[in-house]
Amino acid sequence: MSDARRWFALPSPFRMKRGGELVGARLAYETWGELDAARGNAILILTGLSPSAHAASNADDPSPGWWEDMIGPGKHIDTNRWFVICANTLGSCKGSTGPADTNPATGEPYRLDFPDLTLEDAANAAFELVRGLGIERLACLLGNSMGGMTALAYLVQHPGSVRTHVSISTAPQAQPFAIAIRSLQREAIRLDPNWNGGHYDDERYPEAGMSIARKLGVITYRSAMEWVGRFARIRLDADQRDDDPFGFEFQVESYLAGHARRFVRGFDPNSYLYLSRASDWFDVAEYGAGSVDAALRGISVERALVIGVETDILFPLTQQQQIADGLRAGGAEIDFVALDSPQGHDAFLVDIPRFGAAIARFLEAM
Amino acid sequence: MSDARRWFALPSPFRMKRGGELVGARLAYETWGELDAARGNAILILTGLSPSAHAASNADDPSPGWWEDMIGPGKHIDTNRWFVICANTLGSCKGSTGPADTNPATGEPYRLDFPDLTLEDAANAAFELVRGLGIERLACLLGNSMGGMTALAYLVQHPGSVRTHVSISTAPQAQPFAIAIRSLQREAIRLDPNWNGGHYDDERYPEAGMSIARKLGVITYRSAMEWVGRFARIRLDADQRDDDPFGFEFQVESYLAGHARRFVRGFDPNSYLYLSRASDWFDVAEYGAGSVDAALRGISVERALVIGVETDILFPLTQQQQIADGLRAGGAEIDFVALDSPQGHDAFLVDIPRFGAAIARFLEAM
Repeated sequence: MSDARRWFALPSPFRMKRGGELVGARLAYETWGELDAARGNAILILTGLSPSAHAASNADDPSPGWWEDMIGPGKHIDTNRWFVICANTLGSCKGSTGPADTNPATGEPYRLDFPDLTLEDAANAAFELVRGLGIERLACLLGNSMGGMTALAYLVQHPGSVRTHVSISTAPQAQPFAIAIRSLQREAIRLDPNWNGGHYDDERYPEAGMSIARKLGVITYRSAMEWVGRFARIRLDADQRDDDPFGFEFQVESYLAGHARRFVRGFDPNSYLYLSRASDWFDVAEYGAGSVDAALRGISVERALVIGVETDILFPLTQQQQIADGLRAGGAEIDFVALDSPQGHDAFLVDIPRFGAAIARFLEAM
Repeated sequence: MSDARRWFALPSPFRMKRGGELVGARLAYETWGELDAARGNAILILTGLSPSAHAASNADDPSPGWWEDMIGPGKHIDTNRWFVICANTLGSCKGSTGPADTNPATGEPYRLDFPDLTLEDAANAAFELVRGLGIERLACLLGNSMGGMTALAYLVQHPGSVRTHVSISTAPQAQPFAIAIRSLQREAIRLDPNWNGGHYDDERYPEAGMSIARKLGVITYRSAMEWVGRFARIRLDADQRDDDPFGFEFQVESYLAGHARRFVRGFDPNSYLYLSRASDWFDVAEYGAGSVDAALRGISVERALVIGVETDILFPLTQQQQIADGLRAGGAEIDFVALDSPQGHDAFLVDIPRFGAAIARFLEAM
């Protein structure tokens, strides 16, 4: 399989916010387009919990990326103009150092010996990557979902390092509904006997717990409204059903099972736990003496585009409005876009025409 | 412990909609107030998935019921005027015959040998109870949540048996978002090794699966908006936490754990599976040649009160509006009440002042 990933060696040791450090850690990343002579055309994309750095196809890896229709020559994020970087989050399992990697101190996988991970650490690692690529100041820092929180962590920790910001379907702090969902996802994994305190392997793997966690994720990433139109009460065909008395009967159940099947073995369960907990911990108010608004007001960017979706139940529109208001109070010129896409939190992955138009308009004005 | 339950012996055999029958089955119920000479003042309450027949305290059982502030002398449902009956749903485990009871054919608990259960069966059992009490026509049939679906099943199957109807936070058919949530709850129970195909006991009990199912229930019964005000990001005190690295840290997590603790051993897991699946199966459109609107239009009641809550994500307001519109088209005089209670689906259990006022107003006009 072709691979477009490159690896950036983080400063070693890399100190973590809550204590502990990583020795010999690295970040996986991919790039598209060319960095200009002034090194002024770089866009960094920070991702949600599960995506890899492969946001789009490129010469080294022609397989479609998770934002394939967004990024490329002539696309909404036009790589004829911009040098685009996408980093796999520190602590993830898609090439960046995480709990599944070898702990150099023991020669064994870190598992739960991986130090406490925060989104501030993830942001600092991404910042080191940008500096390592010789970029003093990003033209734009773009974050989706968890990546939007990481972007705020980047902005509050590294003032002056970013000209403009695109914030998509994210949160300035984790709210209790999102915490409750993520806590339950973690619990499903931890209660699976095969999780075994983090000591699973391919034979004894927490498949059931990961499956529940993923399905709960997908349920909260989409919207009830979309599903009424998409699945209604359509039944599975007889040959798609088993004879388990409580087995799947409706298409929506099979849809969730398909999502789970594709995810469960492709994402490290311990990594999931670390990133999920990091999302709960994140609270930009720590950088504003306990006030979200004060923290956001302290961020200095020239312009920002803030996009949210009315049907998003995990990162509600009220939180996008709060980000927009806070950044505006800090002096940024703000484009606030509230979309009525039916796809909920996942709309940024699906409703490319509308997200793309807003992002392209924002970037063209630069 | 005092017990106000009475038992009604269902006709035996009691035939079930999808095949099979129950021999020697019974319904548990409680009553408040006195049936008048004309037998014209009876209100039947059909409940959500988990409540018992103990809706309110009475002489035989002074403990508070699940609708304690709603029902009683001088209360919103005034038992000085009304004879109120609350039935435990057929298939439940609070006194009515369900999967945990002995199958007379084998002398062993039914477990998964209990016949397929539908809300139509639950409605027919309640109808038999009403007839058994000598009541030809209910003054009012009131259903909450799953009980509201059961009430619709009652109305379509027994035309002419009900004068007025109160429909609260329910659905004319299960929609895919609700199906997805319930399917995942059932999966959590079924994936628990201790569920063991329905053959658990007190020692090997599917505690983990039931806990996940209940927490997911509570998350979807309440609303994100309420929790922002109630829990925000409040941490647990150090002495409320364990040293599990992924243990509970936020108050909202402890709140969910408390709900789960109180429920897990108090509700039979197989019963939960049967009632949950029955909710997914329910579709009033079966009585309208495939059309929800036609089925509702075919229901004949004099008046109906339909109440929904804007923050309810499980039984959305659009479905309450659909019920109101359908019953109106059938000739009923309709009171439609959309409340902005912050408590989501559970508001009818919590926001008694507003639900009570609407119900009292409706009943006073009779």
